[in-house]
Amino acid sequence: MTIAAAGLILKYMLNQAEDLDRVFQALADPGRRLMVERLSRGPASVSELGRPLAMSLAAVVQHVQVLEASGLVRTQKVGRTRTCRIEPAALRSAEAWIAERRTLWERRLDRLGDYLASPEGAWPSGLDPDDQQQEQQ
Amino acid sequence: MTIAAAGLILKYMLNQAEDLDRVFQALADPGRRLMVERLSRGPASVSELGRPLAMSLAAVVQHVQVLEASGLVRTQKVGRTRTCRIEPAALRSAEAWIAERRTLWERRLDRLGDYLASPEGAWPSGLDPDDQQQEQQ
Repeated sequence: MTIAAAGLILKYMLNQAEDLDRVFQALADPGRRLMVERLSRGPASVSELGRPLAMSLAAVVQHVQVLEASGLVRTQKVGRTRTCRIEPAALRSAEAWIAERRTLWERRLDRLGDYLASPEGAWPSGLDPDDQQQEQQ
Repeated sequence: MTIAAAGLILKYMLNQAEDLDRVFQALADPGRRLMVERLSRGPASVSELGRPLAMSLAAVVQHVQVLEASGLVRTQKVGRTRTCRIEPAALRSAEAWIAERRTLWERRLDRLGDYLASPEGAWPSGLDPDDQQQEQQ
């Protein structure tokens, strides 16, 4: 692999990490989660999004901007109305990141269960004996 | 329903929202995501968690505290070593929140597809004609 190719791959990985930072950051606010919830039922204008929230229109616009910067939401202005839509790719990447970690953890627990159930007590492959001892404390 | 019962339900819902705030906030940092990734492979001490990260032990401890407050990680001190473990319930609740929104959105798109494919053009139930017009722009 050339240094240029390695640099491109590193840049891609760092971008992916920054994207996840922004998606999780955007989802860390209950008002913005309500907006995502509303948009998962269909497009809405900025003022429709703000209606159930006790906040100024300026605050709603700011939240929409955070959602847009995270890639969770796309907006389009037609005349005087800005319409917001959900952008599913960002939701999917956050979901996939969590699911991969959860799966790893559950697979590890399954192997631990296999080990505890086996009469020989042979170490299953990939399980660190030190971790195992901690688990049994 | 009594006012007391309604109050309890509201308190429970607000707690759930606060929990999700903290979980998504905890996941919005690349260093903390690396820690969750490491822990999904098995328990680790605080210093082990910090090893791949270019930061002081004090900074690592602070990140572990954020993870612990979010419910993503549980720690236990034995002697001078604090061992960290993943706590899967918090990961699952964040994953479920995202999956529900994504599913809603995809189901809506399916209904939209059914409508566009039908020769009669009858509105499928649950689709707002206003949203539909925006979608076709």
